[in-house]
Amino acid sequence: MKVGIIGIGHSRFGRRDDVTVQELAFEPFVEALNDAGIQRKDIDATIIGASPVYMTQRSIAGPITEYLGLNPQPVWLTEAACSSSAVALRTAYALISAGMHEIILVLGVQKMLENPTSEVLKIMGRSGDVQWEAPYGTTFANYYAMYANSHMAKYGTTSEQFAAVAVKNHHYGAMNPLAMFQKEITMETVLESRIIASPLHLFDCCANADGSAALVVVNEEKANQLSDTPIWVSGLGAASAPFSLLTRPELATLSSAVEASKIAYTQAKVHPSDIDIAEVHDCFTIAEIMAYEDLGFTERGKGGEFVEEAYIGGKIPTNIDGGLKAKGHPVGATGCSQVVGIVKQLRGEAGKSQVDGAEIGLTHNVGGHGQYCVVHIFSR
Amino acid sequence: MKVGIIGIGHSRFGRRDDVTVQELAFEPFVEALNDAGIQRKDIDATIIGASPVYMTQRSIAGPITEYLGLNPQPVWLTEAACSSSAVALRTAYALISAGMHEIILVLGVQKMLENPTSEVLKIMGRSGDVQWEAPYGTTFANYYAMYANSHMAKYGTTSEQFAAVAVKNHHYGAMNPLAMFQKEITMETVLESRIIASPLHLFDCCANADGSAALVVVNEEKANQLSDTPIWVSGLGAASAPFSLLTRPELATLSSAVEASKIAYTQAKVHPSDIDIAEVHDCFTIAEIMAYEDLGFTERGKGGEFVEEAYIGGKIPTNIDGGLKAKGHPVGATGCSQVVGIVKQLRGEAGKSQVDGAEIGLTHNVGGHGQYCVVHIFSR
Repeated sequence: MKVGIIGIGHSRFGRRDDVTVQELAFEPFVEALNDAGIQRKDIDATIIGASPVYMTQRSIAGPITEYLGLNPQPVWLTEAACSSSAVALRTAYALISAGMHEIILVLGVQKMLENPTSEVLKIMGRSGDVQWEAPYGTTFANYYAMYANSHMAKYGTTSEQFAAVAVKNHHYGAMNPLAMFQKEITMETVLESRIIASPLHLFDCCANADGSAALVVVNEEKANQLSDTPIWVSGLGAASAPFSLLTRPELATLSSAVEASKIAYTQAKVHPSDIDIAEVHDCFTIAEIMAYEDLGFTERGKGGEFVEEAYIGGKIPTNIDGGLKAKGHPVGATGCSQVVGIVKQLRGEAGKSQVDGAEIGLTHNVGGHGQYCVVHIFSR
Repeated sequence: MKVGIIGIGHSRFGRRDDVTVQELAFEPFVEALNDAGIQRKDIDATIIGASPVYMTQRSIAGPITEYLGLNPQPVWLTEAACSSSAVALRTAYALISAGMHEIILVLGVQKMLENPTSEVLKIMGRSGDVQWEAPYGTTFANYYAMYANSHMAKYGTTSEQFAAVAVKNHHYGAMNPLAMFQKEITMETVLESRIIASPLHLFDCCANADGSAALVVVNEEKANQLSDTPIWVSGLGAASAPFSLLTRPELATLSSAVEASKIAYTQAKVHPSDIDIAEVHDCFTIAEIMAYEDLGFTERGKGGEFVEEAYIGGKIPTNIDGGLKAKGHPVGATGCSQVVGIVKQLRGEAGKSQVDGAEIGLTHNVGGHGQYCVVHIFSR
């Protein structure tokens, strides 16, 4: 049984004080329905990917379903920190493969900015170990700063290489009308910005954001019946790693990403070199460099150099929609947003950032500071 | 492909200041592993059912997996308010049916009481509509009080009938060494207790609690290979309903329960009269009375009378482990706890509360005030 995506929707990411969470969910929902050419009554289950702790309204799946007019169909929420909506897609894949549903709405949504920044930082930090690490002052950026320092020490990776990731992603973000930041930056912009957690500068970090993205996921029969351009989910990998850095043997890699990608490659019967386009989880620039290595795009230690190969025309164009870095990172929405980017590319609908002839795409969605990783592979 | 349960574990419910969330998860985990006769390395995915908003530690699935020694296997959390861990079982069923995993740990866990009572009440209330209803003073008990008033007005149901549910469930709770309250009560205990939300007395309400429960869920081959007494998941139904009471046409029923049970009965190819034993979501006594009707155990309006048929020896013995009412209701754990109760009964291991010859069991797990309902049917 193949599982396909026949509809996509994506809100504008950024500060969205203009909408409630329900209204924010409505935007990509309607777009995805129209894109798939179906009605809301055709949907027979909804899986919401979101991190509940940012919201005043508790148990948001219910309110969203009501607002979208989807009762009495089943709905629930999946949570794995920043990989919540990749897990929602994984769940939908399972439900459809099992024959339990035929047409599922997968929707990632998050409004972070209605909380004061100090509160958002506190919530982010609480995805680290509150018992044994937080008392020593860990914030979320600190974790990635430790990865960056470790990568620099071990492989000689430089601040300029980190900055190059930001430059690339803002370059492509400038072409994405839904991105939070649609502006090119230079290496100086990054290196001269203030230090957030050494060695990471402000421009090495993605921004908290509000946003949503939606997918219409269907079984093989419906895909062929309803769409001329279904995009197939051809490989799925998911893995976990210790969330306490105390217990990780190595800080310059995310072992969950290594494990998850192996499983996904095996299922999809492809190798890293077969990937035409990738969306990776660049919550910090170091994260994208680790992703190149963890996913096997390049050798271990060579991630810093690979960024030049991650432009269109390079070996594996990566984060061509701007990535978390330029799009913004509304935690629960990011997993779906990555898939929307890949689906557009595989359909050949990515406009001026189209990768010619892209046939196989990959998403790499990390939860927390690597305690979860979900990798999906897609094909035309 | 059949999906079976071959291992169960259940912590003591109540005030559990003696353990962290991770330690609380460990208790039923070890018990379920031993019960299934497997090792932790045999588990190839974990689904946690919990409501994240009660916890200081964010994204608890990661910390739990690390503590249980389950890395690098995939893990995530499912949330649908009080039905979070029924949804976790539904997810596991799909993953196994789809052939994505063979042996899954489903674990429901919640520590509510580390929060001050005022905070718990606030969190509970926030599962109602914070935009349009909470400003008018709705608390969680208020919703069920409105259902109770509606049921009384429409069908003449009495406070004594509500109280009879509490008396029955405490009667059986007194036989359950893991229940929060192991003490019989009388009708006077209920009727003379203070009003929480009219017409509901204190003893019409279940108690917030800490607790956990775990299931080892496997595919047909593993079930037959590893267990002499696998219990099969033979029907699964899930449905939603508007969470705003404003938009519900009727308050004396939960339409999500009606829908979910229809689907489950159809899949299991059974009728309500075939059910030998049920665990229903008695967060308030009125909820159990509505459940009798919504599940088709009795005619609409006759729920108040049916409680006499819900004892052992009656038509459908219900909440024979004490229900939420006497066991306590650790939100995320309740769905799994209900399943543990049914599995024990179908195995014939329920001791002095055994229902002789029970072959078909049902769980009815409501999320929020009915915006979600998950119904499972089990057979020997």
